[in-house]
Amino acid sequence: MAKNFTTREKNYSQWYNELVVKADLAETSAVRGCMVIKPYGYAIWEKMQAALDKMFKDTGHQNAYFPLFIPKSFFNKEASHVEGFAKECAVVTHYRLKNDPETGEIVVDEDAKLEEELIIRPTSETIIWDTYRKWIQSYRDLPILVNQWANVVRWEMRTRMFLRTTEFLWQEGHTAHSTQAEAVEETRKILDVYSTFAENWMAVPVLKGLKSESEKFAGAIDTYCIEALMQDGKALQAGTSHFLGQNFAKAFDVKYVTKENKQEYVWATSWGVSTRLMGALIMAHSDDHGLVLPPKLAPIQVAIIPIFKNEEQLAAISEKVNVVKAKLEAKGISVKYDDRDTQKPGWKFAEYEFKGVPLRIAIGPRDLENGTVELARRDTLTKEIVNIEGVDDVIENLLNEIQECLYKKALAFREEKTHTVDTWEEFEAKIKEGGFVMAHWDGTKETEQMIKTKTKATIRTIPLNNPQEDGKCILSGNPSKERVVFAKAY
Amino acid sequence: MAKNFTTREKNYSQWYNELVVKADLAETSAVRGCMVIKPYGYAIWEKMQAALDKMFKDTGHQNAYFPLFIPKSFFNKEASHVEGFAKECAVVTHYRLKNDPETGEIVVDEDAKLEEELIIRPTSETIIWDTYRKWIQSYRDLPILVNQWANVVRWEMRTRMFLRTTEFLWQEGHTAHSTQAEAVEETRKILDVYSTFAENWMAVPVLKGLKSESEKFAGAIDTYCIEALMQDGKALQAGTSHFLGQNFAKAFDVKYVTKENKQEYVWATSWGVSTRLMGALIMAHSDDHGLVLPPKLAPIQVAIIPIFKNEEQLAAISEKVNVVKAKLEAKGISVKYDDRDTQKPGWKFAEYEFKGVPLRIAIGPRDLENGTVELARRDTLTKEIVNIEGVDDVIENLLNEIQECLYKKALAFREEKTHTVDTWEEFEAKIKEGGFVMAHWDGTKETEQMIKTKTKATIRTIPLNNPQEDGKCILSGNPSKERVVFAKAY
Repeated sequence: MAKNFTTREKNYSQWYNELVVKADLAETSAVRGCMVIKPYGYAIWEKMQAALDKMFKDTGHQNAYFPLFIPKSFFNKEASHVEGFAKECAVVTHYRLKNDPETGEIVVDEDAKLEEELIIRPTSETIIWDTYRKWIQSYRDLPILVNQWANVVRWEMRTRMFLRTTEFLWQEGHTAHSTQAEAVEETRKILDVYSTFAENWMAVPVLKGLKSESEKFAGAIDTYCIEALMQDGKALQAGTSHFLGQNFAKAFDVKYVTKENKQEYVWATSWGVSTRLMGALIMAHSDDHGLVLPPKLAPIQVAIIPIFKNEEQLAAISEKVNVVKAKLEAKGISVKYDDRDTQKPGWKFAEYEFKGVPLRIAIGPRDLENGTVELARRDTLTKEIVNIEGVDDVIENLLNEIQECLYKKALAFREEKTHTVDTWEEFEAKIKEGGFVMAHWDGTKETEQMIKTKTKATIRTIPLNNPQEDGKCILSGNPSKERVVFAKAY
Repeated sequence: MAKNFTTREKNYSQWYNELVVKADLAETSAVRGCMVIKPYGYAIWEKMQAALDKMFKDTGHQNAYFPLFIPKSFFNKEASHVEGFAKECAVVTHYRLKNDPETGEIVVDEDAKLEEELIIRPTSETIIWDTYRKWIQSYRDLPILVNQWANVVRWEMRTRMFLRTTEFLWQEGHTAHSTQAEAVEETRKILDVYSTFAENWMAVPVLKGLKSESEKFAGAIDTYCIEALMQDGKALQAGTSHFLGQNFAKAFDVKYVTKENKQEYVWATSWGVSTRLMGALIMAHSDDHGLVLPPKLAPIQVAIIPIFKNEEQLAAISEKVNVVKAKLEAKGISVKYDDRDTQKPGWKFAEYEFKGVPLRIAIGPRDLENGTVELARRDTLTKEIVNIEGVDDVIENLLNEIQECLYKKALAFREEKTHTVDTWEEFEAKIKEGGFVMAHWDGTKETEQMIKTKTKATIRTIPLNNPQEDGKCILSGNPSKERVVFAKAY
C-alpha cells in the first residue's frame, strides 16, 4: 500500500496529493478544479458535519436552505462584498440545450438566454439578506439564528484537493440581531465552537484572533478566525466568523421596529467552515506511512484482522472476535472485522495503516491458545500483546489516549515552531524556516503588503487577549503596541 | 393563524400553496422557480434524511460526493438519456464577472468564456459512470453501493414549491454490479426501502410497481416506482428505482474482469427521492386547520403551553412542566415548552395547530390544583383531561397511535378512491372524479398517449405481483393480460 509513497521530507506537497488519492479520500474529476469525494473521505466529512451540526443546534441554531443561484444584480448591492466575491464565479447564461440540426450534437440553445445572468453562490449573504427582509419586521422576529449546509463555487485558478477547489462543501451561518453587542457575542460564540471542534475533535490546536483589514472578509467589519499550523510550517485558516455590522441590512434594506417603536437596521454575522478542514486534518497528523486519524473522526476506529490457514481456524477466531466486536459496539466504538479471504493479512495491515485506522487487532491460532490478541497503535506504530478478556476496556481507554496524544503532539509541534522575533533578519530567517512568527507591525496596509512581497508571509491573526507591549515594527521601525502572528499560509 | 386560509374544498391548489407558506415550510425566492426552505420545513426534511440515510447504510450503502458540473459532451454519450435530460438545464458559459469600465456595473467578462460549457447536474449518472470507470477493474471492486445527497437543477417551466422546483434537494443512489440478477435485486431492495419509509415514517400508503415504457427514466431498462394518492384524487410519484442494464457502462466504457478472467460490462442501478416527498407529506394528511404531521417526522412532537396570569403562576406551572418535559425527553420525544410572555395562549394554540404538532398540552392554575393537564390531538382535533402523573406514558402511546391512525386513514381514503372499471364511459367518469383507476390496456404507446390526450390520465404503475387476467383494453378493445393503474398526477 505504502509502496511508491513520497515522504514528507522529500516533497511535502506531493506527499499530500498522493496521500489524498491513495487513502481513498478524494480524486480529481473530469471537471477542472472539482474533486470527487470518495466514500472513505466522505465518511470523515460526515463525522465532522454531525459533530458541528450538534454544536450549532446546542447553541440555538436551526438549518435552512437557500437557492444555489444568485441574480447578478445582487452583487452590486454591497460595495466591498462585490469586490471580494463577484469576480471569479460560475455564470449561468442559458437554460436550454438543443440538438444542432446539422451535426446532431448537443449545443446551447441561443433562444434560451436568461434576461439576467445567474451566479452560482460563492457565499450566500446577498440572497439570504434579500430573504431576511421578508422575515424581519419587529424585535420579536429577532434573533434569527440560521445555518445552511451547502455547496459553493469559486472559480479558483490553482486548485488542490480539499484545500482549494472550485466547488466545495461547507456550512454558512447567517444570523440577524437587534443589537451590535448581541451580534458581536454571536461572532465570538461561534469562534469558540470552531476552536472547540478543531481542538477536541480534530486534535488540531488553533490560534483564535482577528484578521487584519487586508485579510478580512469582503463586507465584514471584523473577521475572527482560527489558524492552524501544518507540519511543513505553513499556516492554514481553518474557519472564520464575521461581524458584518449593518452592512448587509443597509444594502438589502432590512429594518426592524424596536420595543420603543423605532425603525433600526438589523445587525448581522456570518461564519463558515468547509471541506478545507479535511485538508487540515490530513496534514496535521499524517506521516510517511499514510493517514493518521484522531479516533473521534475515524470512520473505522478498530480494524480486526484474523490470521488463518483454513475454514476451521477462521470459524474459531470469528467466534472470539464476534464477542469482542459486540462489546466494542456496545460502547459506541466502530469496528471493522475484515475476514475476507481474497486478501492476505499483510495486505490488510498495510491497508488499515495507510487509511489511518487508530487501532488494529490481529488474532491468530496461537492467540486463541494463549487467550491474547495483538494490538497495534497507528499513531505510534507500536504493538503489544494483550489479554482478549477485557480488551474492550483497554481499547476504549487507548482511543481516548490516542485522541489526546495527537493533540499534544500537534501542540508541541506548534510551540516548537512559534518564534518571537525583533529584527528583520530574524524575521526573514524564521519565516523561511516555517512556523508562526510573532512580531511587531506598525498597523499599516502598506507595511503588511511590503512584508508579503518580500517574504510571502501574511498576518495570520491578531490573537484575542493579545498582550499589549510597546515595540517597533519589524520592517518600518515605526511604533507598535502589540505583536501579530505572521506565517506563510495555504 | 388559520384566518384567511383557503379550504381544500374551495381550491385545493391554493390551499396547498397557502399551507406551505403559512406553516413556515418554504417560500418563493428572488430566483425564478427556486424556493427557500425555511427552518421548520427543513427540520422535517432533516428527519426524512436521517431515517433514509440510516436505511441506506443498514443495507450496505456509503455516501460520496460528485461534482455539481457536468461537461456538456457527457450528455451525448447515452442516447436515450440525452433526450430526457439534456434539454431544460442550467448552462454555465463563463467563469468571471468584471466591472463595466463605463457604467461601473457588474457584467459578464466575455474574455472568460469556457471552452466547453458546463451543465448543472439534472441527475448524475453521466459524471458518476465516468468516475466508476476508474474505480472498477475486477470483480473484486464490485459491487459499488454509493449514494449522494445533493442539489440538482432542472429548468422547469411551471413550478410549485416542493412538488416541482428548478433547484431541488435529493439523494441519488448509483450502484454497480457484476451480474444482471444482482442489479435487479438491488433495484427491488431499494424500492422496498422507499415503500417502508413512505408507509412507516410518512404514514403514506404507496403502490409499488413498474413504469410503462413511456413513463420510465431516460436511460433505464426498467423503472420501478412508489405511487401515492393525494387528497384531491391526484397521484404523486414519490420515488423511483431504476434498473439501468449495461447502458451507462457501455456509454462510459466501464468493464470488469470476471473470476474467469473475461472482460464484461458492469450492470447498473440508480434511484432517488427528493424534497418532493415534502409535498406528498403535506398533501396526504393536512386539513383545513393547517398542517398535520405524522409523529415520526414532526420536529416538535409535543408542544406545552402554560396558562398564567402572573410570574408566580408561571413558576408553579414550570416546575411541574419541567418534570414532564424531562421524562418525555428521556423517551426520545421532542418537546417545545412555549413559556413566552409575548404571545397569548390562544395565539400559541393556533400556531401549533397550524404547524401540525401532533400533541398539545395546556396547563393552568386549575390543572395544578387538580393534578391534571389538557391534552389535544392534532389529527382528530379532540381534547381530553388527563392526570399529570403518568402523562409521559400516555403521550408515548398516543404518538404511536396517531402515527398508525394517519396511515390507516390515508389507506382507507386510497381504497375508497380506487376503482376497477371495464368500459370507457366508466373510465372517463372515474378519472374525472379522481383516484386510482384499474383498467385493462393493450400495452401500446399509442393507446397510452391517446388516453392521456383524452383524459389527462397517465399510467401511474403496473403493480408488482399484478394478477394476470384476460380482458380488453379500455380504449382500443384489443386483448390485455392485466390491469394497470391510471390516474391524473402531479
